[in-house]
Amino acid sequence: MADKRKMGLAVAQMGPVHLADTRAMVVRRLRDMLAEAHGRGARMVVFPELALTTFFPRYWMEDSEAQARFFEATMPNADVQPLFDDARRLGVGFYLGYAELTPRGVPYNTAILVDETGKIVGKYRKIHLPGHDDHKPDAPFQHLEKKFFTVGDEPFGVWDTMGARIGMALCNDRRWPETWRMMSLQSAEIVVLGYNTPSVNIHWPEPVHLRMHHHLITLQASAYQNCVWAAAAAKCGSEDGFHMIGGSVIVAPTGEIAAQAVTEDDEVLVVNADLGLGDTFRKNVFDFARHRRPEHYSLITERVGPGAALPRNPIE
Amino acid sequence: MADKRKMGLAVAQMGPVHLADTRAMVVRRLRDMLAEAHGRGARMVVFPELALTTFFPRYWMEDSEAQARFFEATMPNADVQPLFDDARRLGVGFYLGYAELTPRGVPYNTAILVDETGKIVGKYRKIHLPGHDDHKPDAPFQHLEKKFFTVGDEPFGVWDTMGARIGMALCNDRRWPETWRMMSLQSAEIVVLGYNTPSVNIHWPEPVHLRMHHHLITLQASAYQNCVWAAAAAKCGSEDGFHMIGGSVIVAPTGEIAAQAVTEDDEVLVVNADLGLGDTFRKNVFDFARHRRPEHYSLITERVGPGAALPRNPIE
Repeated sequence: MADKRKMGLAVAQMGPVHLADTRAMVVRRLRDMLAEAHGRGARMVVFPELALTTFFPRYWMEDSEAQARFFEATMPNADVQPLFDDARRLGVGFYLGYAELTPRGVPYNTAILVDETGKIVGKYRKIHLPGHDDHKPDAPFQHLEKKFFTVGDEPFGVWDTMGARIGMALCNDRRWPETWRMMSLQSAEIVVLGYNTPSVNIHWPEPVHLRMHHHLITLQASAYQNCVWAAAAAKCGSEDGFHMIGGSVIVAPTGEIAAQAVTEDDEVLVVNADLGLGDTFRKNVFDFARHRRPEHYSLITERVGPGAALPRNPIE
Repeated sequence: MADKRKMGLAVAQMGPVHLADTRAMVVRRLRDMLAEAHGRGARMVVFPELALTTFFPRYWMEDSEAQARFFEATMPNADVQPLFDDARRLGVGFYLGYAELTPRGVPYNTAILVDETGKIVGKYRKIHLPGHDDHKPDAPFQHLEKKFFTVGDEPFGVWDTMGARIGMALCNDRRWPETWRMMSLQSAEIVVLGYNTPSVNIHWPEPVHLRMHHHLITLQASAYQNCVWAAAAAKCGSEDGFHMIGGSVIVAPTGEIAAQAVTEDDEVLVVNADLGLGDTFRKNVFDFARHRRPEHYSLITERVGPGAALPRNPIE
């Protein structure tokens, strides 16, 4: 068997953040979960996407209003600094999602990776923005990520920190197999992500149970196919009446769920993850260098949407 | 809701084919299952990979011996012709996997698509060949696909036939997300495949239950992520003492298992599949043209194996 390289890996699921909740109230909850994760042996904690505020893309408003109320112009800032201080004091790193407004005024759906000294070592800006950019007054709520955010300007990334090679994604990215492949091709061992997934699909009457099903099968298959640990943190439950799924999980490279949240509230999962578990797959069934055939994958980068069948030789 | 375009879609799982079994014995079983599928409303039947013989890549032998015993130099040939005749008589098409030796002597692991008039309308030669090409005398059996077969010389394909756009894959192809993406980017509505999956992993002591788990999560996630029906037919059970998993399934574009084999023997599954079910996903969460970002997928075609992290700008 491969060498065991164990890492305490935590997911901190969050219950609802309501419109009336302040950043200070939210950070207090994050600090409590960071401390619990530390006490249970975690070296790193994964927090949700847009963790500091309610999932505001559900509300129609002007960009300027959204940016004033829900975006962070600096990170850390005074509200979040105590979390960074705890990280350094306890020696526990974290992943945190928030709405970023850059110095040049560009809005991104962003995640950062903070190491065990409290330093920001990586930043990822969401590439697969779901939803729409127009007002849908007949829908029960909006999904305005394509309005409020710009598509990430940098590639999918992997950072070598805290004893592991860690890739970052955000929410809808997890449904796209390309996301995971871009990270495993950069030698990721762990993929971390936060999400806000409404229980109701506003586009068609999708059975509600499918939302959780799609979340889980996608994470399980992607962890297996890319030989990585996957750690996914939900913000969930009913935010001012708008419900989102829970189901935060830590998935092993075997595709098995090693830990799963059982509430729709603040809840910490910790797994003592053997990073070597992915090696057995990387060296055999998914030895990419021996088995992948990029010469047969051309359409993945040549086409955006679906098109006609490729030409073929006559059948011999 | 989308228009309902129903299609009777069948999977014909096969129990073992032993070394002593003749092609004629096997074709008799295939014909029985084709007739059953027809009686239950199927317009098309999916048979396994290498359906006409035992899974011979488990045995070390010279290529010339393998080709003489286990390959087909013509298709249809006298042994298989009765299956083609039944297809035309009943008006039921099929997918069939077999070992192909071309007129120029090139060996492929091949699948054909035969329409309801008994005509071969498509041929696919396996791209993701698993296993090894050297003799491993200490292993309990061999997995010599890389020795006995050449990598497919044509792209992943989709054929417009029998009222649907049908993509073909074979066995190990199903574990690679690129396979499915190549087909959905050619507008596939159904992906059909056969497989022979040994229950024991000869490369490392993998828990046996994971073989079925990986098979199912990969099919479910891939069907969902690509908005296709997936129909997968096993050859399974113990062939001369070498056991392979069953678990033949028809998976909906929802990622749900619509039908699953419950034996390790010859067994027919039929689903009246609504091809329109995939459209709801194609038009929303997986509207590729709106959501895919090929400019961020470059490594998928540029790299074969994993490498270093991509360069990034300084964190601002």
